[in-house]
Amino acid sequence: MDERIKKQIEFALEIDKDKNIFRQTHLTNHGRNENDAEHSWHLAIMAYLLKEYSNEKIDIARVMIMCLIHDIVEIDAGDTYAYDSKGLKTQKIREDKAKERIFSLLPLDQKDEFIAIFDEFEGNKTPEAKFAHAMDNFQPLILNNSNNGSDWREHNVTGEQVYSRQMKTKEGSEKLFEITDAILKENIKKGNLR
Amino acid sequence: MDERIKKQIEFALEIDKDKNIFRQTHLTNHGRNENDAEHSWHLAIMAYLLKEYSNEKIDIARVMIMCLIHDIVEIDAGDTYAYDSKGLKTQKIREDKAKERIFSLLPLDQKDEFIAIFDEFEGNKTPEAKFAHAMDNFQPLILNNSNNGSDWREHNVTGEQVYSRQMKTKEGSEKLFEITDAILKENIKKGNLR
Repeated sequence: MDERIKKQIEFALEIDKDKNIFRQTHLTNHGRNENDAEHSWHLAIMAYLLKEYSNEKIDIARVMIMCLIHDIVEIDAGDTYAYDSKGLKTQKIREDKAKERIFSLLPLDQKDEFIAIFDEFEGNKTPEAKFAHAMDNFQPLILNNSNNGSDWREHNVTGEQVYSRQMKTKEGSEKLFEITDAILKENIKKGNLR
Repeated sequence: MDERIKKQIEFALEIDKDKNIFRQTHLTNHGRNENDAEHSWHLAIMAYLLKEYSNEKIDIARVMIMCLIHDIVEIDAGDTYAYDSKGLKTQKIREDKAKERIFSLLPLDQKDEFIAIFDEFEGNKTPEAKFAHAMDNFQPLILNNSNNGSDWREHNVTGEQVYSRQMKTKEGSEKLFEITDAILKENIKKGNLR
């Protein structure tokens, strides 16, 4: 086996570990916690399904691969809950270290390519990154809403906290932010969000 | 909420169930059984990662969405193990029924679009479908090989059975079939395959 494909297969096996990184979000029907691989799969399909609502023209392949790899660094860095203010402070350092280790398994040209995709997502400046972020917000929102807001109630999250995070959705999709806004108002009314 | 987006969200919530459909393949490091959502996530990334080995020029967005949705019908039809000759006989009928129910949740234009993608995968005629099939073979192969062939040993699978399935890989990628061939020969030698 030549060196290039050996490295690519090693990377493919390494990222299998993303299936064991669990998030705070629960599956529909009050299911178990969701893992990163499932979450990323869901984002990529939703990006394709909802692409008509992007504010700007997007390269859907770029959005999908962004969604698929955006949480791979959590294999080393662990999942940082969106409303964990302590964890959020160290998140960047932990994830940068992980990024370097994990993508270094790839052939050099692909290391550079995958890091560029990851950084583009993190930078949240391009139309593709903004729409991928809208998915990263919208997917746990609809799962949580389908479970009557139990993830928010469990963590005693405030409406303010959620709105501050969900504002990013507006940059990717005005339309999906409208829906988000309606869902949040309903959950505040129900007392699921403080 | 207008009817169109309501249907799209309903579909997005329905496919969440794919995370509870378990396969015969086990995760690396002798982990638990893999589910369909994780498997599909893995295929889509591997398609992007290994696209240089496709025999023919491919539209990578098309391959990725094909990989992401190809097992959704198993929400109703269940997973049919590749070497379950009894299950394979009824697979098409079960999956056709599932396809009609699940994709009918979508707005009509998207129902048609998703069914066309699913049927293209099943038909295995286009360059994109052939490469997606190569991924669908190659991913469980490398997971299983990393676990010293334990999935084959558990099911008492023969080399002939595996070769007959893996021949499809050659249509999508000569290069990946070379690797497949080397891995299978090694596992036959080790006695992991009868």
